[in-house]
Amino acid sequence: MSKGIILFGHGARNPEYIEPFRRIRAVVERKQPDIPVEIGFLELTQPALEASIECLVARGVREIKVVPIFFAPGRHVLKDLPMLLGNAMDRFPGVAFEVADCVGEVDAVIEAMANHAATGSP
Amino acid sequence: MSKGIILFGHGARNPEYIEPFRRIRAVVERKQPDIPVEIGFLELTQPALEASIECLVARGVREIKVVPIFFAPGRHVLKDLPMLLGNAMDRFPGVAFEVADCVGEVDAVIEAMANHAATGSP
Repeated sequence: MSKGIILFGHGARNPEYIEPFRRIRAVVERKQPDIPVEIGFLELTQPALEASIECLVARGVREIKVVPIFFAPGRHVLKDLPMLLGNAMDRFPGVAFEVADCVGEVDAVIEAMANHAATGSP
Repeated sequence: MSKGIILFGHGARNPEYIEPFRRIRAVVERKQPDIPVEIGFLELTQPALEASIECLVARGVREIKVVPIFFAPGRHVLKDLPMLLGNAMDRFPGVAFEVADCVGEVDAVIEAMANHAATGSP
């Protein structure tokens, strides 16, 4: 089954907000060039999560891993995301979804953020 | 001059939201045991940024580095944070503040998030 990844973010009014998501995608694509990676937002920033799912499904993807680019599971990850994925499952019954841990729960990410806090210059 | 660090986060309703911030603090404290580290939030989660600043100043800190635990600079980092720090400067004229880059703008953090997205299991 063809796999794909969605980097799921909150969204913001500032158009530059998408930049780190693009950088994450570029690194993932370098590591796994055969797996399509989309970026999808909850609100304010385009594309919306729904559009990213649609895009992957149109490309033949049938297993989508959604990676919450959030520091910790709050309402958006625990409530809004399952609701959006529930709708997507109704719409695309042949597609399997899995949700990864929030990036902020991952040891290596914690370590990298701590290194920045400890030594990073402003 | 005595230095201190504040990990500045958005805040959320879920009480477990603070957990990654505690983990980042623990790593920073292990790396730099002589520098006090506080966590301060914009809203919803306690302590508020103002309270964390107060706490550091009460401990004799006169140079505070604020590290935005945000993926990208949006309204909260570009508008809310400078406003809160402006108020703090009025209140504590002897204290110097600096704002670090958002963690999500840092190469090593991007790389760690990408590793998780590429290989992390759900």
